[in-house]
Amino acid sequence: YPPVTLGIRFLTTIEYHNIADSTLDTITEGFESLIEVKPDVDVDLAQGVLTIQMPPAGTYVINKQPPFSQIWLSSPISGPKHYDWNEKQKAWISTRDPDITLGELLRRETKDCLGLDLNLEVD
Amino acid sequence: YPPVTLGIRFLTTIEYHNIADSTLDTITEGFESLIEVKPDVDVDLAQGVLTIQMPPAGTYVINKQPPFSQIWLSSPISGPKHYDWNEKQKAWISTRDPDITLGELLRRETKDCLGLDLNLEVD
Repeated sequence: YPPVTLGIRFLTTIEYHNIADSTLDTITEGFESLIEVKPDVDVDLAQGVLTIQMPPAGTYVINKQPPFSQIWLSSPISGPKHYDWNEKQKAWISTRDPDITLGELLRRETKDCLGLDLNLEVD
Repeated sequence: YPPVTLGIRFLTTIEYHNIADSTLDTITEGFESLIEVKPDVDVDLAQGVLTIQMPPAGTYVINKQPPFSQIWLSSPISGPKHYDWNEKQKAWISTRDPDITLGELLRRETKDCLGLDLNLEVD
């Protein structure tokens, strides 16, 4: 018989890496598109670690944390957060603050810091 | 007349960058020395962001946060911490847990994760 389902389905390792890589790629492209208008912004993605230098706020680090199937964020504005993928919402949800997705947090803080409305198309 | 001293002296920007860069360089060299015996470990330092992949625990990110004159750490074992330089102790002290320096935390966790006693010569 099939396992009891509790409404939570854990991602396979491959699914986690696919979704997380896609998210980091999309965020990278979003911020790279800013560089033309905000040349102080610097973006680097390597081995699952995305670094965004965003003066004057400071440095964002967004990285995969495969042992937990999470994405971890370090924001110079709001500090650290850990995100789980929510398959139902198709969004990365903070373990500390479930009301704001990863994409929404980055949109809000980019607007506050740079005065730009960045549609990352990431949740 | 000289300014009143309250026992706290703030670092100049240049002092902060010198001390923080030196700390990140020393940590990088320490972990690079591990790679011969632990080839799974990967170390990368670029633009003030040090990434250490340490299977099976996960990914450490240690980065400068110049607007705060701090070093921020994201540990896959103990989570996030923010460090201020303490000139009297000549050590990076966590804002959350003043009893453990940055160097001591890395020594302890490297020992727990890899079974190796790494003397980073960083405080």
